[in-house]
Amino acid sequence: MKKKEKIPNPTAERLVLYSRSLEALMGNGEFVISSEKLAGMCDVNPAQVRKDLAYFGEFGVRGVGYDVRDLLHQIKKILGTDRLWRLCIVGMGNLGTALVENENFKKRGYQFVAAFDSDPLKIGRALPNRLIIESTDKIEDLIPLLSVDIGVITTPPREAQRTAERLVDAGVRAIMNFAPVQIRTPECCEVENVDFSVKLENLVYHLGKTH
Amino acid sequence: MKKKEKIPNPTAERLVLYSRSLEALMGNGEFVISSEKLAGMCDVNPAQVRKDLAYFGEFGVRGVGYDVRDLLHQIKKILGTDRLWRLCIVGMGNLGTALVENENFKKRGYQFVAAFDSDPLKIGRALPNRLIIESTDKIEDLIPLLSVDIGVITTPPREAQRTAERLVDAGVRAIMNFAPVQIRTPECCEVENVDFSVKLENLVYHLGKTH
Repeated sequence: MKKKEKIPNPTAERLVLYSRSLEALMGNGEFVISSEKLAGMCDVNPAQVRKDLAYFGEFGVRGVGYDVRDLLHQIKKILGTDRLWRLCIVGMGNLGTALVENENFKKRGYQFVAAFDSDPLKIGRALPNRLIIESTDKIEDLIPLLSVDIGVITTPPREAQRTAERLVDAGVRAIMNFAPVQIRTPECCEVENVDFSVKLENLVYHLGKTH
Repeated sequence: MKKKEKIPNPTAERLVLYSRSLEALMGNGEFVISSEKLAGMCDVNPAQVRKDLAYFGEFGVRGVGYDVRDLLHQIKKILGTDRLWRLCIVGMGNLGTALVENENFKKRGYQFVAAFDSDPLKIGRALPNRLIIESTDKIEDLIPLLSVDIGVITTPPREAQRTAERLVDAGVRAIMNFAPVQIRTPECCEVENVDFSVKLENLVYHLGKTH
């Protein structure tokens, strides 16, 4: 298996889906799964599942299926989700607070190690996970100190680009941006812009067709 | 142009991206755009842009480009985003509150017309958009009364499936689920499960490759 080989984005996204379903199977005490059943769980067609998994070598046993535990382990290794990642977040409004409280993040190995805001009324306040909200003035000091890998931006839109630049300068190599603006960063930093209304527009498109 | 023709999901997703960029161009007073420039703005290759747009007929003028206003209008019509959609939301924690406050939703024609929670301490409280939080006991009465099109679920995970069933029974035809569980609904109801950590895992995958 060539771990460092470039996998297309849609494949990586499907691998995440597979890993979710495999975790659910493990939880139910199921140890073998066919590509058909995995495909059904993920709403992907079975040929696609086999093709995606073949990308990384031979996982399955013909006529038997995949070993759930082994497949999950391999996918996590490929995705890099077999280790802990250290996150910081900037902008502690309702959304920022909701993300820090999100149990799924912790369960999947994403740990918030710093939370920043520029509002003096919020700075110093303790979050449910015992983090203390720090002033954004400390971004440059704390990010290297805490070995932050990924920055999450939940600031108002007008502050998002400047925040991204400060995060990158401080050493963050990936950004998840929830502010409703596209942000630009140097090549060295990956960005995922999360726009809730994109998902909504997919839904609406399907609604329109059934009228 | 065949509006009701089935467009593949990834195409619909790209159309949403195009519409975002076209809106930005309109805001900047630019009225013509080449497929190359639109492609660059959306991080999609130009051949793909041309193919996607050709799907709906002939938009562009060879050697000149697309009329921004006309193209945006056509895409919105195709996506069904040229009208208002009425949303309700169930679960008024931090995430629910953040979504109701999201300016982008309103700007794009998504209006929250009802907000529900089961917590007696929250019921009756006014939200910033002047909605009053209603008891979940009223889901069945209010959804038809308010002609809700789309339900948004931001409940704790254990309540998500039951909430989805109540929304569907009350007449909602599409659900956006933010609870970290997969929910199942009858065929008549489209579901988008929004899982923040999927986006995070894409980022992490890219980080892993650059180590």
